[in-house]
Amino acid sequence: MTLRRAQGCFISLEGGEGVGKSTQAGRLTDALRARGLDVLLTREPGGSPGAEAIRQLLLEGAGDRWTPGAEALLFAAARADHVTKTIEPALEAGRWVLCDRFLDSSRAYQGVAGEVGDAAIQNLHQIGSDGALPDRTLVLMLSDEDAAARAHARDEGCPDRIGGRDAKFHAAVAQAFRDFARDDPARIRLIDASGDEEAVTERLLAALSDLLS
Amino acid sequence: MTLRRAQGCFISLEGGEGVGKSTQAGRLTDALRARGLDVLLTREPGGSPGAEAIRQLLLEGAGDRWTPGAEALLFAAARADHVTKTIEPALEAGRWVLCDRFLDSSRAYQGVAGEVGDAAIQNLHQIGSDGALPDRTLVLMLSDEDAAARAHARDEGCPDRIGGRDAKFHAAVAQAFRDFARDDPARIRLIDASGDEEAVTERLLAALSDLLS
Repeated sequence: MTLRRAQGCFISLEGGEGVGKSTQAGRLTDALRARGLDVLLTREPGGSPGAEAIRQLLLEGAGDRWTPGAEALLFAAARADHVTKTIEPALEAGRWVLCDRFLDSSRAYQGVAGEVGDAAIQNLHQIGSDGALPDRTLVLMLSDEDAAARAHARDEGCPDRIGGRDAKFHAAVAQAFRDFARDDPARIRLIDASGDEEAVTERLLAALSDLLS
Repeated sequence: MTLRRAQGCFISLEGGEGVGKSTQAGRLTDALRARGLDVLLTREPGGSPGAEAIRQLLLEGAGDRWTPGAEALLFAAARADHVTKTIEPALEAGRWVLCDRFLDSSRAYQGVAGEVGDAAIQNLHQIGSDGALPDRTLVLMLSDEDAAARAHARDEGCPDRIGGRDAKFHAAVAQAFRDFARDDPARIRLIDASGDEEAVTERLLAALSDLLS
């Protein structure tokens, strides 16, 4: 479905571990607000009380706590709550919504790298969230080596249940994002996340120029 | 899929609120054990540590805490965990499994009465649990008036988030179970739940006679 909105846009920010996503989410929010926009910054899994409760179940415990299918169902349940309780009301009020991770993370992590299958993930999203998609999805991309080094520095050797998976898994995630962008170039844009933070933020803004004009 | 099993059978016990399901689950377990069978009695939502954590999210809070889609996704996630961690290992070990509520409750409550749709519920079950079905499903049926009176006596006016829904909802659940039994008579049997407890248990056993012989 197309989410009902007054004038704001729904933007998701995606990428693998260590690409600087959270830093850029904050910087992009500031940059959009500096342009006079009313921006809600939110994140997944979580972003509403129900979804935050599900987030605890997803990120705690051993790596094999959930089967891939159960994990995909929990992410879709959290997203359904987040869309209904947080994202849709903000868009209906005319705000912009910037979401740190959304559907395409589930497609990449559980669908492709986690072997649930992209079709199944999209099916769950249809059932839970009526298939709601962002107006633009920005995917921060780094070389696998640079991303691993940044993630290691950030987590100080203590990654969460999903960030702690092996290099092959994270390479599959990165390749999935490349494939999604190739298949839906109008919505999904790959953004070079190398170099200094300010330069990356400028690239993100440039990829929103049509929505900002 | 057909669940791998050594020799045991997988039986689910279903029905609306107040039909005496929990009482009969215990009685039927005792009766099967008296026949020398090794029976695991379990229940949904719950039945494994992960599924019990999801159960808390499902049964607590206000009636509108979750959208129908989110609720269906959470039930399917709990079921996926329960099938993988509890039911399948028991069947593989040659045990019988008696489950107090399973897929058909989600089909009736969220699928038909909750308006998510039966096809969507079955789709979620395919993704989460590979479509695993019981060998036999026994549905306890009472008149709507008798069931409401029994549920009221049991809950002493304090039903949980789902049991507390209105009479129209519970009538839709009962009709859904009748339709499921009509559509799949080999697996799903309606059992008259009126009269004394012993008579009801005898009816349940009679509906398992082919599996017990």
